[in-house]
This record gives sequence, C-alpha cells and structure tokens, in this order.
Amino acid sequence: MFRSPSRRRRVFAIGAIIAAATIVVPTAANAAVNLALSDNGGAVRNTGDKTQEVRSAINGNAAKNVILLIGDGMGDSEITVARDYQYGAAGRFPGIDALPLTGQYTTYSLYKDGVNKGKPDYVPDSAATGSAWSTGTKTYDNAISVDINGKPQQTLIEIAKANGFKTGNVSTAEIQDATPAVEVAHVASRSCYGPDTVACGADALAAGGLGSISEQLIGTRPDVTLGGGSTTFEQTAKAGQWQGKTLFQQAKDRGYQVVTDAAGLKNVRAADQTSPVLGLFTPGNFPTRYAPTTATIGGADAAPVTCQPNPDRLSTDLSLASLTTKAISLLQNKQGGKGFFLQVEGASIDKRDHSADACGQIGETVDLDEAVQAALAFAKKDGNTLVIVTADHAHTSQIVDSTPPTSLSTALTTKDGTTLKVSYGTSAAGGSQQHTGTQLRIAGFGPGAANVVGLTDQTDNFFTMANALRLDRNTAALSNQARASVARGTVRAGDTVTVSAKRFTGDRQVSATVRPGAIDLGQKDVIDGALEFSFDAPTKAGSYSVTLTGAQSGHTETVTFSVR
Amino acid sequence: MFRSPSRRRRVFAIGAIIAAATIVVPTAANAAVNLALSDNGGAVRNTGDKTQEVRSAINGNAAKNVILLIGDGMGDSEITVARDYQYGAAGRFPGIDALPLTGQYTTYSLYKDGVNKGKPDYVPDSAATGSAWSTGTKTYDNAISVDINGKPQQTLIEIAKANGFKTGNVSTAEIQDATPAVEVAHVASRSCYGPDTVACGADALAAGGLGSISEQLIGTRPDVTLGGGSTTFEQTAKAGQWQGKTLFQQAKDRGYQVVTDAAGLKNVRAADQTSPVLGLFTPGNFPTRYAPTTATIGGADAAPVTCQPNPDRLSTDLSLASLTTKAISLLQNKQGGKGFFLQVEGASIDKRDHSADACGQIGETVDLDEAVQAALAFAKKDGNTLVIVTADHAHTSQIVDSTPPTSLSTALTTKDGTTLKVSYGTSAAGGSQQHTGTQLRIAGFGPGAANVVGLTDQTDNFFTMANALRLDRNTAALSNQARASVARGTVRAGDTVTVSAKRFTGDRQVSATVRPGAIDLGQKDVIDGALEFSFDAPTKAGSYSVTLTGAQSGHTETVTFSVR
Repeated sequence: MFRSPSRRRRVFAIGAIIAAATIVVPTAANAAVNLALSDNGGAVRNTGDKTQEVRSAINGNAAKNVILLIGDGMGDSEITVARDYQYGAAGRFPGIDALPLTGQYTTYSLYKDGVNKGKPDYVPDSAATGSAWSTGTKTYDNAISVDINGKPQQTLIEIAKANGFKTGNVSTAEIQDATPAVEVAHVASRSCYGPDTVACGADALAAGGLGSISEQLIGTRPDVTLGGGSTTFEQTAKAGQWQGKTLFQQAKDRGYQVVTDAAGLKNVRAADQTSPVLGLFTPGNFPTRYAPTTATIGGADAAPVTCQPNPDRLSTDLSLASLTTKAISLLQNKQGGKGFFLQVEGASIDKRDHSADACGQIGETVDLDEAVQAALAFAKKDGNTLVIVTADHAHTSQIVDSTPPTSLSTALTTKDGTTLKVSYGTSAAGGSQQHTGTQLRIAGFGPGAANVVGLTDQTDNFFTMANALRLDRNTAALSNQARASVARGTVRAGDTVTVSAKRFTGDRQVSATVRPGAIDLGQKDVIDGALEFSFDAPTKAGSYSVTLTGAQSGHTETVTFSVR
Repeated sequence: MFRSPSRRRRVFAIGAIIAAATIVVPTAANAAVNLALSDNGGAVRNTGDKTQEVRSAINGNAAKNVILLIGDGMGDSEITVARDYQYGAAGRFPGIDALPLTGQYTTYSLYKDGVNKGKPDYVPDSAATGSAWSTGTKTYDNAISVDINGKPQQTLIEIAKANGFKTGNVSTAEIQDATPAVEVAHVASRSCYGPDTVACGADALAAGGLGSISEQLIGTRPDVTLGGGSTTFEQTAKAGQWQGKTLFQQAKDRGYQVVTDAAGLKNVRAADQTSPVLGLFTPGNFPTRYAPTTATIGGADAAPVTCQPNPDRLSTDLSLASLTTKAISLLQNKQGGKGFFLQVEGASIDKRDHSADACGQIGETVDLDEAVQAALAFAKKDGNTLVIVTADHAHTSQIVDSTPPTSLSTALTTKDGTTLKVSYGTSAAGGSQQHTGTQLRIAGFGPGAANVVGLTDQTDNFFTMANALRLDRNTAALSNQARASVARGTVRAGDTVTVSAKRFTGDRQVSATVRPGAIDLGQKDVIDGALEFSFDAPTKAGSYSVTLTGAQSGHTETVTFSVR
C-alpha cells in the first residue's frame, strides 16, 4: 500500500548558494546524510540554501497550458493528516509537496440576500469557491458561476475555449457536482443536475433558462470531460432542440464520443471540438481508494487501525492520476499552436471529511497527489505549463494529542509506526462535519506561478490562470471577426440553402432566423469558430435574409439569398 | 478599536509585468478600482502580475539582522479568525499579511522514551517546537533546547552572541515560558522556572545542573530581555556563586539594568554585554488586549458580540509592538559591524485559544501584527534585515458555518458587520483546548527569506536564520583564539593578582583554577570575549599557574606568575 517515501531526501545533491558570505558555513544538509530525526539538522527538509532554487522557479513567461488540481476540502490539516499517515511526519508527498512556489488564500463567500447582501460569509461551500476561481467573481453559497445577482460569469473553460485553447474537466465526483460544474454551467442552485431536477427553477430549459448543469455541460463542449455522474445523463430533455432525448443521446447527436468504462476510454485516441470525449464511469461519485473508517466519541482511544483498500475502487486505469494522464495526452497539442486548460478535482477528500472518515479522506488525498505527480511530470517535460494545486475550502479534521471528550475521533497507525489521532468536532455523530473558514495553501509550478505567493484570494487564482494563458477575457469581441456566407445566392423553391460562418470564436452556439417570416432555424454548436445551417428554401419567390446571432456574444451576421 | 483597513488596496500603483504577452490583457486590478466584493475581480488581493514583485523579494545576500516573530498557537485558522474579525474577510493585516515570501512548515515533535523513542509525535508543545527553531534539533514535548537524550543543543541566541551579534528576547509571557526559554536555557522540563521549582530535578544548580531557566537566562546574557515573569526572579539561588541572593539581585550584581515598569524602560538608553537590560513588567504573563469571551455549548447561537478592551491591559508603551521597537533601537548597531538576532513572541494567542476565548486570541494576534509592522518598518529602512513571522504549532479554533452541537463556540460581529462563528472542539468546557498538528504558515522578508518558500520543517527555520547571519555554529572553536595574560609576572605574598583574557568568544562564562593548591576562583561572565579574575596572591613563595577554562567551549588558557 505504501510507496517509497522520499523522506531521507537530504541525500540529494546539495545546491547551497552562499553569496557574500563572511563565514562559509556548512548548511544543515551538508552534514546531514544519514542523520536520525532527533539529530541536529536531522529533520530538515531543505537540502541547502533555497534562494537560487526559488528564484529559478519564478517564470514570468506566458504559459501554453494550465493544469489546476483541486483537492476538495483539502485544507492544511487534511494535507498533514494524509502525509503523516501515508509518508510519516517527516515524509513528503511526491506531488503536492513538490511545487516550488507557495502561499495562502482566502475562501470566504458572499451573502446573496437581505441586509448582508454582498457581505462576507466566512464559511463557503464548493459552489461559491469554485465559481470564484473559475470566474474571478466572488459569489454566494450554492451559486454555479453566477454572481450574487444571478448573472452568469464567464468561466475559465469558456474563456480558454473562446481563445482557441483546448479544455478539459476531470473529477472523481459526479460531473454535475459543484467543482466540475463551475467550469461548464451557470445556475442559481448547485443541485440543478439535470432536466428532472425540480430545483432548477428558472434555470430549466422549459422555464426559458440556460438548462441544467448536465445540459449546459454538453453545450459548453470541453474537449475532454471525465468523471462520475452518468445517472443524470439518462434523463430526458424536457424542452429545447433535444426535447425527448436522453442527455447521452443528445451528447452523441452533438458529436461527443461517449464512454462509460476503462476499455472505452482506452479506445479514445483523440478529442477535439469535432469529437469531444464524455467519459462517465460511475452512476454517482467514484468509490474511494480506502475503505471507510468510522469515527466515534472516544474513538481515538481505541486500538489504532491501518487503512484498508476499498474493494469497490475502480480499476487503476480509472484512477484520478490515470484520468489526468489521459486528459493531458488528449489535450496536448503536439503540433504547436495554442495549448490547453485542464481542471482536475479530487472530490472526496471533502466528502469523506463530512462523514468523519479519516481513511477515506486520506486515500483521496493520496489519489490527488498521484494526479499532481502526473501533472508535474508533464509540466516539467513541457516547460510551458503552469500547474496550480490548492483546495476550495478547509474542512473539519484536526490532528489532536488526546482524545476529545465530546467529539468524534479515530486513531490510526501511521507509516512512522506511531498513533495519529484525528478529531471531527464540528458536528455530532450522524451529522455532516462542516467546512471551515481558514485560509488555505495554494502552490504553483511554471509560468505565472509567482502569483500564488503571499496572501491572495481565491478569485486571484482566476486571474493568475487567465493571465498566464494571456486570455482575452472580452470573449464577445472575439466574435467580431465572424463572417457568414451562403453557398448559392439564388436558389429555387425547395432547394437546400446552406449558410456557413467562420470565426464565431466568442460563441459556443449560434442561432439563425430567416426573414421575412421570422423562421427560427434553431441553434448550432460552434466548432472551432465554424458552423453551418442547411434548410429548404422558402417556396415563395423573393429576397430573403438569414441572420446568425452568437448565443454568447450577441454578435450578428446577415446574409441574403433569393428564391426565384 | 479598529484601525483603518487597507482592504481596498487595489488603488495602489499597478506593477503589472506581462512579459512575452501575445495579447496584452488588463489584469483584474487595472479595472478594479472601486469595485464591490461581488464584482468580477472585486475581491482580488493582487494588484497585478506579481512575478517581478516576488522576484524582487528574493535576496540571497547575508543578513545583518534577523527578527523572528512567533505567534504562539497562531495557525492559519487563528490568523483568519483574527483577520475576519478585525479587518474583515477581504482585509489584510498590515504586518502579518505583508511579508512577500510564504510557505508551510511541519511542527511535529519526537517521542523521548520507550519503543517510540525518536519517532514522530504529531501534536507538539511549545517547548519542543521552540527548541526546533532555536537549535535545529527536533526534540520531545517539554524539552527546553535539549535533545531527546537530554543533551543541550546550542540556541540561536547563544550562537549569534558567540559570533559577535547582539541578541534580544521579547515575550508577552513569563520570560520562563517555553518560547522565550528555548533561546536562553537547557532543561529537561519546561516547568523548571526558578531555584524553587522542584521539577528542575537534575537541572537544579544544587543538583549539579545548569540551573533553572531563570538562572540560565542570566548567564546567557542577551543584550535585551523584555517580558513578564518577575515572580520567579524574587526567588533565591540555592547553590552556586549567588547562593542566598535573589535572582534580581544576582542580575544586578552581574551588570544587568533591571527595570520593572514603563518609566524604567524609557530610561534605558543603551543595552550591551556590559549592561544588558532585563525588563520584567508583570509577575506572570501580560494581560491581554481584549477582555475575554466565554465559549459555551451552543454559544454561537447567542447574539454575536464585539470584543471589548481589557481594562487590565498594560500601557501601550509596554505593548508587544512598543517592546519590539524598543528592543530594535537598543540592539541596532548604528556604527556598522555585526548586527543582531531578536526573537519576539506574542504568547497568548495560544493561551486564550486553550481557554476557548475568541476575543482573547484575536486581540493577541492583533498585538503580534503590530509588532510585525514595527519589525518590517525597521527592516525595510535597514535593507539588511531578515524578518520571519510564523507560529510554533496550530491550535483548536475553527471558523464554522453553523453552531456545533457538542463543542464550545462563540459568535462575534466582525468589521464586515456579519457574524463569525468560532468553534472549540478539542476539549470540553473547563478543559484546555488542544494544540493541533497541522502544518503552518511561515513568511519572510529580506535576505534569506526564500528559504521559507515551499514545504519546510520547523528545524529548517533554525538553519534559515543561522545561515542568513552566516553564523559559525562551531562556537567552541571560536574560543581557540583566546589569549590570557597576567598583569605582573612576579608579585609579593598578599598582592592582588589580576589575570585577564580576551577573545573567549565561544564562551559565556570562564572559570579559573590556581595551581598548585587547586584554588577555585569561580566563574566570571565573558563580556565581549573578555573577562578578568583578581585574587590575593598565595602567601607561599613559588611558581603558580592560573588555568582559565571556557564553560561552554572547554578551551583552556594557562598563565603563570611567581610569588617571591
């Protein structure tokens, strides 16, 4: 179960740079090879003066790619719990702990209503926090990329895509869960999963809204979407162009490669706007890496346990690390040109922390770490990739010295062979342990990563990533270069008229209307800026116009044709 | 009570550096002046791309001075609680949050005994943690700068002093409390405050030990010592050269300027090895800034309160910030030459957290922040000062969304005008809330500060500071240059013989023995490397030697004289 820890990393080459020294002093590390933790210098993590190492890690260039890895609920306490257990207190995560630039950020949300409208709410949920980094707009708990007034805010995936980047969205949760949802949808309530969800309210297509999270996901059309949550895709659209079809069928009709198992994913060799991949491998959330442990009042006084593999875990080719690697390989542009933006979420650190399940949250942190390793391995090889690792909000679990008398707790035997006591003190047994409001670690590697250093806010992370990719956030203007044409200017009644357009890059869909008659031709997906409408020419001779309108930009292009 | 928050800091000059941009994009901040928190970009903290700012903050030069500021128990949660309350969630501490380079560090201690000897203990106390940064040696809870085998480990104050730096030690606690003690003493048990402490055991002078913390403090002789804890100094030495005298009298006899109130401190114009200053302003710990609040089961459901000034608080010229400023002014070497090492502790963040006292811990964090501001103001002006701000260990307090059913909690009305719920879930009412084992924030400014970035251990901080000052840690060898001389080589019986020595820089005391006869002349304090013994010449004519032995280095120098 344990992988080789790099705990005695002071056997690494010494990179000590001592400039302007008046006395040349050996660093701790110089003399520290094979020291015990209890020796002077025996517990240090630095292998020498880090000045040059940190300086070298600062890169102000543009990034070609950005990979954002989110440990949901992965506060500093959750990181430490998992590290202590899996690698020992002096160990280090090969991924999470390897990012060279680090800082802290604030995660508060805002109140939506009443006298506190617009004021800080100190403990956020995953919807508000995800919306913050996805859009740069601080919002209310429950909001999926809408502001406190309900106005949709553009997401990184949307903006990156409009700027010609490939995009990906990977999670161990249901793909409709808040963290993946914030990149692809705009709804007032995070529970608006699918067309059957009553809570969608005004967001439902049938109510004239943008549709449920799942329906919006299809329209946002990331090149790669991998996660859980297939159940919702069995639901049937209640309104719109795909009314009466399941969401799976809709996705296929709109060009998606739909896969539901490891073999299917393995067969996916490419993913692009023509044929994006939608891989949903579980009905709901992924099973966890480790089998759950149950915290009880006084539980940390019981004999400490070790975490056991979860027999229900998916095969390792569907682990978060494997999905991350697959997503990168599908998104990577080997021919030059624009790069990609990829979001990866380890979802169940949060979910298991809510359930006071120490082994559950540890295993999910280890899984995320393996995904970080995969991302870093690519980024180091690529040289132009910004990797950011952080969480959305902190959580309940605390490492304690003695068993708390009134709170749930668990005792674990760690890699060190000593006992780790984990306390869950924000809810009673059977209740859901709470998120907490503390500032969080954020860490980065690659171009633009210096922006994580010091104290930032979660919304800064949006600008850190958008600016690293040099994204033009005025995506509506990107459709100003749109051009439309009609195949033949004069047709006979009943002939097929084909109107095509290019460079509608600020839009994901374009609608068309024929006038006179105000004939609605519906919407088409924009594929790499292009789209095409074909329809039967009106039977009445005369001059007609077709007006194309960008669904997101509002930009219009009009072409004319005659029926003789 | 509130000071002007710098919350809308995006009116600052924009320092955006966008290198190699393919599209020049306005940063969030460019457009963000006067935005609401709920606007896009309205909650960001960065005022532009920080790459150049972070790069500029990296300084690999030697530091002339180091100021270490410790918030005892000041985990990220405690920082956030205090920031939310005092400045609002979007606010920032003018000091704590202003350090440009940041990271996380681990704080675990080690077991001392039994099968777990030398293995990690995941929740440390302030003794083990202070020893870690003070000596670079990871040790057991309760240890004051001794290793797990009880062997004394050199402290930063001792090493800095031996290297010719001035030294200071400031705390709002009793000066015998663990955090200040780790810089000046070596005892097996942190409770060994004074000669009356039974728990001193083998460390007592009467038992042949190095003496209690207070007695060792006098001998370590920092140039500046400011804090509480005068009670112990009323105790009387039970053994040694000052047996029968109070510690206050001993300190005066050994050259200290002893002050006990603000007026006395104001009159101190200089502090050096000849006349170090010992200012002890309270019998025990300092009173806190804010009056205490009492957390109760369900307390966060009660009407939220605002923190009230503590009427018992010391006058502001004895605030932590004032003491820090005073210490700096006394330590600062305006004539060039060596600089100083100063440790400053805000002690009662921890103590109030133990008592589930939200206002108490908040006020102490605000006090520490003001001390950080003072340190940074000096460091920025000086240009060669490393400032490090961190904590010793994390603590219990958590910011929660709803009132925990079984834990103590309190509700506060913050600067934002909204309600902050703080939970204390690691102990029952009346019990002491526990330290927690999560990794902590460490932040730095100035030469060598890059060593705090990324993941380090608390013991790294010792090497970060020692290496920044280019300290030679082999202090025993520093006494190899010692030279002794006798005033007159031939004297008459009963004449005064004066033996003086210089450059005993690796020692704090030197003892002398006259032979033949093995006459013990006792110990003298080494003042800037120098010391002098005067004694009556033996009555018997003949040749005599005087051997000087460094108490710390063991280095010996022998001079001879004749009695005719």
